[in-house]
Parts: sequence; C-alpha cells; structure tokens
Amino acid sequence: MAAAVDEVRDGLMEDWNILENVFKLLQREDTFCADPQQWDKQKIVPFLQPEKLKELINLKVRETEKCTLAEIEALCQQVIHYSVKTSHGRFHNQLFGQLDPFGLAGAVITEAMNGSSYTYEIAPVFSLIETEIISTVSKLAGYKEGDGIFAPGGSTSNMYGIVLARYKIAPEVKTSGMFGMQPLVLFTSDQSHYSFMKAANWLGLGSDNCVSVKTNQLGQMQMDDLEAKILEAKARGGRPFFVNCTAGTTVLGAFDDINGAADVAERHGLWLHVDACLGGASLLSHKHRSLIAGLERANSFAWNPHKTLGAPMQCSLFLTRETGRLLERCNSTEAHYLFQQDKFYDVSYDTGNKSVQCGRKIDAFKFWLMLKARGYGKYGLLVDHAIGMSRLLEDKIRKRSDRYRLVLQKHEYSNVCFWFIPKAMRVSSKEETPEWWERLYTVAPKIKEQMTHNGTLMIGYSPLKAHNLGNFFRMVLTCFPILKSEELDFILDEIERLGDKIDL
Amino acid sequence: MAAAVDEVRDGLMEDWNILENVFKLLQREDTFCADPQQWDKQKIVPFLQPEKLKELINLKVRETEKCTLAEIEALCQQVIHYSVKTSHGRFHNQLFGQLDPFGLAGAVITEAMNGSSYTYEIAPVFSLIETEIISTVSKLAGYKEGDGIFAPGGSTSNMYGIVLARYKIAPEVKTSGMFGMQPLVLFTSDQSHYSFMKAANWLGLGSDNCVSVKTNQLGQMQMDDLEAKILEAKARGGRPFFVNCTAGTTVLGAFDDINGAADVAERHGLWLHVDACLGGASLLSHKHRSLIAGLERANSFAWNPHKTLGAPMQCSLFLTRETGRLLERCNSTEAHYLFQQDKFYDVSYDTGNKSVQCGRKIDAFKFWLMLKARGYGKYGLLVDHAIGMSRLLEDKIRKRSDRYRLVLQKHEYSNVCFWFIPKAMRVSSKEETPEWWERLYTVAPKIKEQMTHNGTLMIGYSPLKAHNLGNFFRMVLTCFPILKSEELDFILDEIERLGDKIDL
Repeated sequence: MAAAVDEVRDGLMEDWNILENVFKLLQREDTFCADPQQWDKQKIVPFLQPEKLKELINLKVRETEKCTLAEIEALCQQVIHYSVKTSHGRFHNQLFGQLDPFGLAGAVITEAMNGSSYTYEIAPVFSLIETEIISTVSKLAGYKEGDGIFAPGGSTSNMYGIVLARYKIAPEVKTSGMFGMQPLVLFTSDQSHYSFMKAANWLGLGSDNCVSVKTNQLGQMQMDDLEAKILEAKARGGRPFFVNCTAGTTVLGAFDDINGAADVAERHGLWLHVDACLGGASLLSHKHRSLIAGLERANSFAWNPHKTLGAPMQCSLFLTRETGRLLERCNSTEAHYLFQQDKFYDVSYDTGNKSVQCGRKIDAFKFWLMLKARGYGKYGLLVDHAIGMSRLLEDKIRKRSDRYRLVLQKHEYSNVCFWFIPKAMRVSSKEETPEWWERLYTVAPKIKEQMTHNGTLMIGYSPLKAHNLGNFFRMVLTCFPILKSEELDFILDEIERLGDKIDL
Repeated sequence: MAAAVDEVRDGLMEDWNILENVFKLLQREDTFCADPQQWDKQKIVPFLQPEKLKELINLKVRETEKCTLAEIEALCQQVIHYSVKTSHGRFHNQLFGQLDPFGLAGAVITEAMNGSSYTYEIAPVFSLIETEIISTVSKLAGYKEGDGIFAPGGSTSNMYGIVLARYKIAPEVKTSGMFGMQPLVLFTSDQSHYSFMKAANWLGLGSDNCVSVKTNQLGQMQMDDLEAKILEAKARGGRPFFVNCTAGTTVLGAFDDINGAADVAERHGLWLHVDACLGGASLLSHKHRSLIAGLERANSFAWNPHKTLGAPMQCSLFLTRETGRLLERCNSTEAHYLFQQDKFYDVSYDTGNKSVQCGRKIDAFKFWLMLKARGYGKYGLLVDHAIGMSRLLEDKIRKRSDRYRLVLQKHEYSNVCFWFIPKAMRVSSKEETPEWWERLYTVAPKIKEQMTHNGTLMIGYSPLKAHNLGNFFRMVLTCFPILKSEELDFILDEIERLGDKIDL
C-alpha cells in the first residue's frame, strides 16, 4: 500500500501535465467549433444511439486501472468528439448558445482556484466580486438597495424567491413548519417555467397551491385572470402570498406585464417575484429595457447570465430589494464551525448565511470577467442584435409563407416559433383541416431527427398545450454566436432540405 | 450600434486567445502552489482586509469599458494572486484540500463543452458517464439496484433524501402540500451538518421538526436517545418519517452506527438516509470500509467526491436504493418543451425528470476522469494514507503533551481536533480551572489570525457547543496533498511558532 501511495505522490507533478494536453485539445478547431468559417464542415454532434455509444467509449470504471497520460488524452478527445458542440454557431437547441471566450476564461480560473463562496476567509476576492455584481445588477433593476446571491441555476433562484416570500409573511415556518397552516398559494402563468411546480413540491406547498394563470395569445399573463384566481383561492380558504411574472417565457419568449401584476400584488399584499432567467438580459439594453419595465416594483427576481449572454453554465443570480438582512435571517442557521463571529475581519463579507447551500461554487467571477472585458453596454447591444435578428427571421419566414407558418406574427424577444410545411402537405388554406394540423404537428420531431443525424443544425421543438398547439420549432437567438442575415437563410434552407425528405 | 456589434463579432476569434493566456497563467508555479518543493516560499494567501483589497483591485463594473487582452490577463493574475491557494499543501482549512490534476482536467473540459445534464440529446456522452458513476457507486454501497443524480452540493443531496422520503410516505404532498398534515418529523444528531436545519426550513418542515439526537463523546449518535426522541415526537402528535446518520461529521469526523440506526428506523418505519458527504470516500477503502458498514440498509445517501478526494467543487452524488423510478416520480413535472416523448432515442436516458433543477451542470465527468486515470482502488489507498497520517498526527500531538491537548484520543476518520496551549498558559493540571479553559478557547482564533496574516498555514477552528467545548483546531487530512510525516511536524511547529507570540 505504502508503495502505491508513494507512486501516486511521486507521479503527481507529472500528472499535472494532463492540463497542458487538455489545453491543447481545447485549442483545436473542432472542440468548440466557434469559427464561422468552419461551420459548414463541422458536425454539431456525430449522433449515436446510447447502445452504440456505450460500445464505442470505454465507459467502465474499475478498481484497478491505470491509464497513461496519452490514454487519458485519447479518452478526453473521444468525449469531446461525441459531445454536442454547444458553441457551434448552428446550435440553437436551448436558451443558451455559444460561449463568450471571456466567460470560459473566467470559468477555467474558477475551476483551477477551487474556492467556495461561504466566507471572506476562503474566498476574499471572489466574495467582493459577487458583491460587486449584486450591487451593479440591483442598480440596473432600479433597486435602491439590493441583496442577493448566486445560485446553481434558475430553478434554485426561483425557489429562493418563494422561500423568502414565505419567510416574510410567515417567519414561523422556519421553526414550526407549515403543518396546520392555512394553505399558502402562489400564482404563475400557464407559460411560466416548470420550476415553480417543482418548487411547490419541494417546498411542501403542493402543485394544487401553485395556481396556473391564463395567458393571452402572446403568452402573457392575463391580469384579470390573476385577480380572479386570487379571489378564488381566498374563497377556497387559501392564503395567496406570491405571484410570479415571467420576463421571457421558455417557449414564446413572452414578457408578463410587471406593472400590472405589481398593482394586483399590492392590492392583495402578495410578494412579487419576476422570473427573468431568460429575459433579464434586457436590463442591459437601452432599446429593450422597457420589456422588463416595473422590475423595480418586484420584491425579487432571478436572472441567468448563462442563458443568451454566453456565460458558462452555471451562472444564475437571485436578487431582492428587501433589506434588513432578510435573506440572511431567512436562511441562516448557527453553524459555529464555519461562521465564527470571533474572526479578525468584518464577517458581514461572509455570504454563507444567505445561502441554502454550504459549499457553493464560485459563479460570479466568470460573469464579472465578461463585464470587465467588454462593459455591460456591449452585451446590451448584443441583446439588441439578437432581437433584431429574430424580427428579421420572422420576415424571412413570412416571405416563405407557402412553406412556413409563424406561431406569432411578432415575438417579443429573441425566440421565434414556427411550423415548417413539407412539400407533400402544401395545400390551399381551406384544406387546412384539423387532421392536416395534427399531421403538421408530427413534422418537427421528424425533421429534428434528421437534423441530429446530419449534425448540421440543432433547433428545439415544443408543443404549447395551454394554447392547444402541437409541435413547432422554437428558434432562440442568443448574444453569441453573433449571426449574420445569411445564417438565417441557411437555417430555413436546411430545414427545407431535410424536411422535404421526411416520411409523413 | 451595428458597428459596435460588428466590432465584437470581428474580434471574437481574437478574443479566444484569452484562453491561451489563461492557460499560461494556470501553468505558473504560483497559481496552484501544488509543488511541495515550493511550499516554504509560497504564501497560501496574501491576506488583505476587505477595504484594502477593494482599493487594490479594480472591481467596478461599468457600462462602457473595454479592456485589452493584456489588461484582462493582468486582472486575472491579480485575482489569482489575492485568492486563497486551496491546492497549496498547507491549506487544511476545509474538508477539501489539493485538487487532483485529473479532476481539474475534467472540470476544464466540462466548462469548455458547456453542456447541461437534462437530456441525452444535449449531453449524450455525459449522460452515460453519470449513469456509469451511479451504477458503480451503487454497487460499492451494496445496493442491488440504485438510482441517483449529481446535485450542486451536499446540502442539496441531503434535501433530495428528505424530499424522496416524504414522497414515499406521503405522495399527496406533491399535489396538496403539507398544510393540515400531521407534523412530519426528522431526526439527526447534534453533530450532523447544518444542511438538515436549512432543509427543514426550505422544505416547510420547520426546525422544531428537525429533532436533534444526542451524541456520545466520540460524536456518534446515541441510539437510545434516537429511539426516545422518536417516541417523544409521536407522543407530541408528530409523524416521524426520516432519520439521518452521519458518516463523517464535520468537526470530529465521527461515524454514526448505521446498522443500529437501521434497526431503529425499521422498527418505526422510517426512511434511513446517510449523510456520507465527508465519509463516503471510505467506500473505496478495503481497510476502512467498515466505518460505513450498514450503508446497504440505508434508503439513500449523499457523498461529495469534492471533499477529501480532490475532485473540484462541485461534485456531489445523491443515491437511493429505491427502484420503480421513485426519484423520477417524485421530481418530475410535465415539461413538454424539453422532455418530449416523441423522440427518436430511448428517453429513459434523459435525466432531467429526476432533478429539481432544469439546467444542471455536468459534475460527473471530472470524477469519472479521475477514476479512469487511477482506478478507484488507488483513491481507497489515498484514503487509508490520509487516515493513517491522522493517527500519526495524534501520536505527535501526544508527544507534545505539555503544549497540545487532543479533543479525542483517537478520531475515527482523518479529522484531528486539538487545542494548543501557549507558553504563558502551561500550568500543572490542577491549575486548569474553568477560567483557564475559557482562556484557552480564545487561543485558536488568535493563532488563526496570525496564520492567515503569515500565509504559512491554514487550519480551521471550531467550538463544539453540543459538548460544551470551546474553540479548538480541526485539522483535516485529505487524499491530496499526500503528506509525509515531516509535514505534520511542520504544522505543529508552525502553530507553536505563531502561538507563542499571541497576546492573551
């Protein structure tokens, strides 16, 4: 045993060479596929079915195994090869796109420094950086003062909002729980993110108490329905406490009317939270800031710079305008081994008492480095560009009206939702029977399959059950890649090329 | 505006050069401070008070700012310089130590590929890798079948356990919440991690229903007190549903008797969870596997390879032996835009329905790469070595009995807790009055201050309120750095050097 341990110890300085090999891998053309000149030649993913991929990569982990550096490097190369190149300029499958190089640079440093965001002691610089981001974004949001925390994703950030709202109206939950309480009810639109349902489950509220509010055709919450649902909940014996507005819904990219919701929330004494995970980037834009008007009236909001802006996963911010250390009072416990009060520095810089986590990955630095490198105004312009490109894509789709149909004539944000009509289904408008539509709803999944097998383009599709709509494509334009008009033509051409070949 | 966007686009390929600069920074001696030859010369942290550090680093984020690559690099260098070097071999402040190079290599690739663990579609290789880890660790735990998920930290993994237990006995909580229910009560020792209190708050159970069970002098949960507390809770009208055993407590490194707790849990029909965030590494050791005996009887457990093993933050695994897709049934919602069932591959590889998150950072790959590089047996030997060194440190402390006092004569794991007695306080044993002890409790914080200012050593300290003990040092030996005996002497010598100089 001692010999084996010595061997590992003695080999350690050599093991560090793996980093250089990995750096070389990362500098190869085909790792990120970030260069527009190469997109035509590079596959987004060489898709293989799970069983096939399992055969191909030596996935098995064993008790005794010792790979050489070269073998490890080969394995890394294989993993990279068969992974989806999310930085390929034709990957539009999610709400995120290409990485910002400065974001990745920051993320790599974070990994290397391997800190944890609980105390100033262990994360001096990173704690100050987190505070700087919180303060900057608070100002952008129109908060006089603001408090907040980076969370491991938007779902958690939204949960922070619900928990904080609950603590504000019923601090006794922290000690005695919700048993025997009048049911607490939260409200969110039928187009909002599923994290509110997941939160209702985890936080013990139950999905019945996560009330779905109707949306209009654009996907925006209907304020009259919100008010009606609040009154209904009260009539049923519930205690409304929280309403969520979505700033940028997942599918349509719709923005709820925050001022309208704030009026309703104020009238009924509810906490107003804004899920701006997607649409928070509009805070940086002079042109589109109005999309999120009224945000300063929200008690809290969530924003994910890892969507659209090009920050690496995970980068999610929860902010609240509540002061008096509400966030800390809500989430703190007495952990004496970590948050000693007899320290030799100002412990108000220790962030751990605000967090539901203990160890917490440093997610602020990569975002800070991006903002330092370009200034946040530049990201605002990139948001404007992405939204501008979305409107252009709508125009282009309208010009191909025989082959394409828009779900909305004008989307609010950088999402564009549409159906493609394959050659065999192009009929006169009166022949567009309910059966024809049902058939059309099967088209997107089939084209998606072709896209993935070809590796030339990746765009998501989705139904919109609340609006009784079947599968359509959801194209999301993100800050990176910074697309040119020709690239939009490619997207439509490629869908046609693949779509005319599918079996219906 | 268009010009500014073109400028960003045109500069993008050049921006990627930042990566090469960052790679160079990371290859410098003073970034990780991983080379034992250099420890004497390198500070773990050049500590500055927050106000001073704020003056020194240009933290401010602005709307219009454009740093050159060289300026960004300089900023990164500054951030690295003033950060704590957690990979310095004399950083023993937390439950983690030096990074394993293979872990870092994996983390860097993960950042670069920027995937998300919700579907096979977007994370084909990483999904299979997560499955492989879950299956391997399930077998090591003695589970016939196992299910699980990587979570963003141990606190979340523990929450998964509580939520799953609650779903099993009261699935109706998912829909109707906990209002009007008989209070659900969970049990965990007074030495267990504070995440159970935090979870009780978030999940709506309340801290009163998170019952603290007494520990013996070694810090292990007392089974008779557990049984008594369960009966008391029932008598008060509560419904006991969950008991947590800790495998490796935060301060003393104590292991609860899992078999004993399993007997009690079975008798009362409770879910047994094991918080093995710290001690889970013993699964890999032949010599110390018995510490965690009985784990196969636990319904679930949490383990953080980012502690002790050298995987970068965050790397936390939640596992359950419950089958029948319980985890998925507990956490799923119908998210049609992401988890379409009309896909062209086996959607059972999509992991998102098991998760409380939506986007989820890929945390499995770095750990997998470590295991591929060395085989998990090698890590078992490193665990043995770390524990062996802890026993050696105890011996060395006993040999300096005039200056040191052990909290426990023999700790169970690789934590060693002790007081240092400064020269001015060395008295005969009958002079060790309560006042003397109170004074001794002020010593560790003062030495810690000196350590930090000197940058020569970082060791945490803690009181143990439940055992009426004041501040003592908690030294944690981790798999990396792989220390030699001389290094332990350095630790004790350095504490003496600094400790004899403090003002009492």
